[in-house]
Amino acid sequence: MNLPLKGIIPPMITPLTENGELDTEGLKRLVEHLISGGVHGIFLLGTNGEGPSLTYALRKELISKACKLINGRVPVLVGITDTSFEGSLDIANHSKDEGADAVVVAPPYYFPISQEEMIEYLENLIPASPLPVMMYNMPSCTKMHLSIETVKKAKELGAIGIKDSSGDVFYLYSLIDAFKKSPEFSIIAGTELYLPETIIYGGHGAVTGGANFFPKLFVDLYNASLTNDKVAIIELRDKVLKLYNTIYNVGNNVSRYTKGTKSALYAMGICEDYMALPLCRFNDEGRDKIKNYVEEFKEISVV
Amino acid sequence: MNLPLKGIIPPMITPLTENGELDTEGLKRLVEHLISGGVHGIFLLGTNGEGPSLTYALRKELISKACKLINGRVPVLVGITDTSFEGSLDIANHSKDEGADAVVVAPPYYFPISQEEMIEYLENLIPASPLPVMMYNMPSCTKMHLSIETVKKAKELGAIGIKDSSGDVFYLYSLIDAFKKSPEFSIIAGTELYLPETIIYGGHGAVTGGANFFPKLFVDLYNASLTNDKVAIIELRDKVLKLYNTIYNVGNNVSRYTKGTKSALYAMGICEDYMALPLCRFNDEGRDKIKNYVEEFKEISVV
Amino acid sequence: MNLPLKGIIPPMITPLTENGELDTEGLKRLVEHLISGGVHGIFLLGTNGEGPSLTYALRKELISKACKLINGRVPVLVGITDTSFEGSLDIANHSKDEGADAVVVAPPYYFPISQEEMIEYLENLIPASPLPVMMYNMPSCTKMHLSIETVKKAKELGAIGIKDSSGDVFYLYSLIDAFKKSPEFSIIAGTELYLPETIIYGGHGAVTGGANFFPKLFVDLYNASLTNDKVAIIELRDKVLKLYNTIYNVGNNVSRYTKGTKSALYAMGICEDYMALPLCRFNDEGRDKIKNYVEEFKEISVV
Amino acid sequence: MNLPLKGIIPPMITPLTENGELDTEGLKRLVEHLISGGVHGIFLLGTNGEGPSLTYALRKELISKACKLINGRVPVLVGITDTSFEGSLDIANHSKDEGADAVVVAPPYYFPISQEEMIEYLENLIPASPLPVMMYNMPSCTKMHLSIETVKKAKELGAIGIKDSSGDVFYLYSLIDAFKKSPEFSIIAGTELYLPETIIYGGHGAVTGGANFFPKLFVDLYNASLTNDKVAIIELRDKVLKLYNTIYNVGNNVSRYTKGTKSALYAMGICEDYMALPLCRFNDEGRDKIKNYVEEFKEISVV
Repeated sequence: MNLPLKGIIPPMITPLTENGELDTEGLKRLVEHLISGGVHGIFLLGTNGEGPSLTYALRKELISKACKLINGRVPVLVGITDTSFEGSLDIANHSKDEGADAVVVAPPYYFPISQEEMIEYLENLIPASPLPVMMYNMPSCTKMHLSIETVKKAKELGAIGIKDSSGDVFYLYSLIDAFKKSPEFSIIAGTELYLPETIIYGGHGAVTGGANFFPKLFVDLYNASLTNDKVAIIELRDKVLKLYNTIYNVGNNVSRYTKGTKSALYAMGICEDYMALPLCRFNDEGRDKIKNYVEEFKEISVV
Repeated sequence: MNLPLKGIIPPMITPLTENGELDTEGLKRLVEHLISGGVHGIFLLGTNGEGPSLTYALRKELISKACKLINGRVPVLVGITDTSFEGSLDIANHSKDEGADAVVVAPPYYFPISQEEMIEYLENLIPASPLPVMMYNMPSCTKMHLSIETVKKAKELGAIGIKDSSGDVFYLYSLIDAFKKSPEFSIIAGTELYLPETIIYGGHGAVTGGANFFPKLFVDLYNASLTNDKVAIIELRDKVLKLYNTIYNVGNNVSRYTKGTKSALYAMGICEDYMALPLCRFNDEGRDKIKNYVEEFKEISVV
Repeated sequence: MNLPLKGIIPPMITPLTENGELDTEGLKRLVEHLISGGVHGIFLLGTNGEGPSLTYALRKELISKACKLINGRVPVLVGITDTSFEGSLDIANHSKDEGADAVVVAPPYYFPISQEEMIEYLENLIPASPLPVMMYNMPSCTKMHLSIETVKKAKELGAIGIKDSSGDVFYLYSLIDAFKKSPEFSIIAGTELYLPETIIYGGHGAVTGGANFFPKLFVDLYNASLTNDKVAIIELRDKVLKLYNTIYNVGNNVSRYTKGTKSALYAMGICEDYMALPLCRFNDEGRDKIKNYVEEFKEISVV
Repeated sequence: MNLPLKGIIPPMITPLTENGELDTEGLKRLVEHLISGGVHGIFLLGTNGEGPSLTYALRKELISKACKLINGRVPVLVGITDTSFEGSLDIANHSKDEGADAVVVAPPYYFPISQEEMIEYLENLIPASPLPVMMYNMPSCTKMHLSIETVKKAKELGAIGIKDSSGDVFYLYSLIDAFKKSPEFSIIAGTELYLPETIIYGGHGAVTGGANFFPKLFVDLYNASLTNDKVAIIELRDKVLKLYNTIYNVGNNVSRYTKGTKSALYAMGICEDYMALPLCRFNDEGRDKIKNYVEEFKEISVV
């Protein structure tokens, strides 16, 4: 894996069947959909991947099967975020065994912890990880906003980059600024709308949930951002913005992003839309809305 | 187990050795310390028990050993809160097999979910649980404040009570008011300072972290509250209030309550003070402070 | 004025006419209603008094007329909270001239300020005030939760007490504990439901919005709390709790407490229910609800 | 005044003397500094202008003198945000009389109000204002985040634009998107770092506090953004980003932005740095830091 990690790295959803097992056929189609869409890496078991909701057995099965299907065509990152330190390492070791390239870790998310406690945690985790570690800032789920100082400390310990899903653009820009003399350290936007800004100001890529269903849209926007093609940037990010008013806007729950993502893939015939509790797939009304929204995007040549 | 569950039910810490295994000798002493202190039940694997930080194997070992040691002398409640639905049921089934009396569940704590999603979760969980379910409101860790409506729905589904650790007294009083016509439904204070008010206004007990080290203090305060003995209430709750300025006040981290609890037990010679990551025991300075604080409480006849 | 200030001190609403002038006849009736209800003081121009929404001219007119009507029968406190330091002093001086007994000050509420900045503000304000100053903790409106240290500093500068409307019972208890060796420093609950606890644990009184319409209910609860009459306390505080489900529960806006208070007074024929922008009185549906709720309280002998 | 309002519109600080009067000589120098820096408008009595801390008399004096000094060379906007509706209108009328071009209004900031209550407020205010009204979203001070729907309603009532100081870039982009078919409605960034993004995606300008001391920096960045000159944008916004680590980074208080702004102007010899309570100017240590920071900017040719 070349550093810094760059480009569009979808946080892949985990296709599930009605009885909570892996939707193996859906997984095959999804992996091909992503790779043929031009993505630069695949991130398993993140928030969109419902990692924390899955048993270790299912997580491991997914890692094994996805690594085999991806087969080295793009780097594979695996989320190991867990409230159990041993659980995180267990998944990291399995990832290594199955050929993944890196692991991604957000703060353990039950106890509210301080930056100092997080650093102590990383001092234990990063050296023990068999794979390079990417940091993951996700305060809406973990209750902790990684400070720039904590990220610097993580880098000293060996971390290879950070994915920021805080939605706080000032923080994202500050990260880019703080690490501008470390070109091998990846700054990855976790909020898809901020992809162009991230690239223009010196960041490296984006982990965009929407790249699950529209990978090419995000790859094209990434490329337009690299060349600062203003006309293309505006046209493409308007399509991204449209996601927030359509596929990401069914119902009022915070989970609508993840639910909408899985539902769009279902509408496109790629995989099932079952989810692991505490999330549930949309009801028929929601699924119909998503289906219609996907059609709207077809009309503007996104699909 | 008689309903409503009543009295002082310590959220037992999980004694650990340096290498992260169960401190079996400490566990024996701790169980005897609690029961000889007069507690009315024991709650395993809650927040103070560091449940979410432990592997399933360790959680199960603790349940088995604690149930054997307690041996029916008081009811045993087991925390099954988990981000994996299957993981929660797995612990619930093991608890049933080992002779526990009830399980305790807070919202799954990774995804921010709505009240509606929580109800859907309970509709799946409560009927599937082999043991009676007590609800656990713990918004500082789970990001979700269970609405009174959600608790009512949980009761309809079979829940036997709620432990409220929100610190929101208005909510606690509203719970007592909402269920005053359901005398078998337990309203349990999770904030130890509010024990007298809870009992006086019609609640049933308290899950008090401090009862790990000073069980008799809380049992006495419970009894004084039952008889509305104002002099005793004021004297005893002043000692409880003193905890907040001493044993619970070492360092600035939110985790100081759990750390201080384990450290006080260590100072009293009951068990080790090792913790599971992401928490770490106090350094020597912190441990000395706790030791001195414990001495202060001896001087006012608490220990 | 005897210190510590004690008892029930309603935060009097400001009766207004349709065109935004003072409802002078309503004011007369309201003052007599309060005093005949047995209140121990009257607090003008607080949050319920809509102080910050009123012009200086109107505030001064209210102070002059209310002081004249009250005529020394109970102490008069006047809210001088303002974003303009000179504005606060202007109202304080007018209050002194008209015979008020003390002024009440919450943090200036536009800029988010630190505890240090608040202390600097008080170092300027308290010595310059012509009347004794009572502190007012009202974070939901001022964005600032006065720390115990800041209140201690205010006391050193001459403050005579604090009214706490944070709703944070742990803070309220901590205040009582922090000042228990200063018996002349008043700890006044601003959340009416916590009146009994405040008195039992050593506080001095309550500024209760509901005492605008049901002054005797709160005076009775205060007296029952003084004598620790458990039966009476439970009966009376259940009636107070009922307020939260009735008169304080019309609509979803935070302003429903103030609106409901004015509307209840209107329903009881005491004064008009017009409000100063940005608040507006209830529409007919809301007014009818309030009217019916007031009737319910008549049936349980509150009015 | 041509609509939409465009370009760099500094939220002018209010120069004060030690005794709290207007620093008239400083005001003259400041106005010339801004206009010679190329600004496209001047906004009086906003947050940086400490509007809410000043007496009405002082606010009016500032308006009169500033309008006279500016003398039509650029449009003048005046902040009328106030907790008193009559107070807001009073300042609006004076602004009209003195020749200002528009007024700016944020929500009244004492009571926490709902979007519905805000709309009701605007239904009263906008028709009554003698000057065109610009909306001002400033949730950190007003506790209210104007919804897109509320802004749409304000536009229907006659508002001419919105300045967004929420720091929420998603909201800012959503505003641009929501009003893209209303080219005369100004979308103005209130967070200076987001000036280029605002212009590139179709917004109109920025109210940048830093333009008080470095007006040309922001005017240059605005022009570079208009022409999408990537090299210049990156160079200039790096200088803007540097502000956050220097002039805006003295002390920990939220007020450090406003204090740093006034202190930089003092260091540049333009006006006094006294502030209205509850804010205080920096002590000598802070002033020295600011002075050194200003020197650093001279070295990179900003001043």
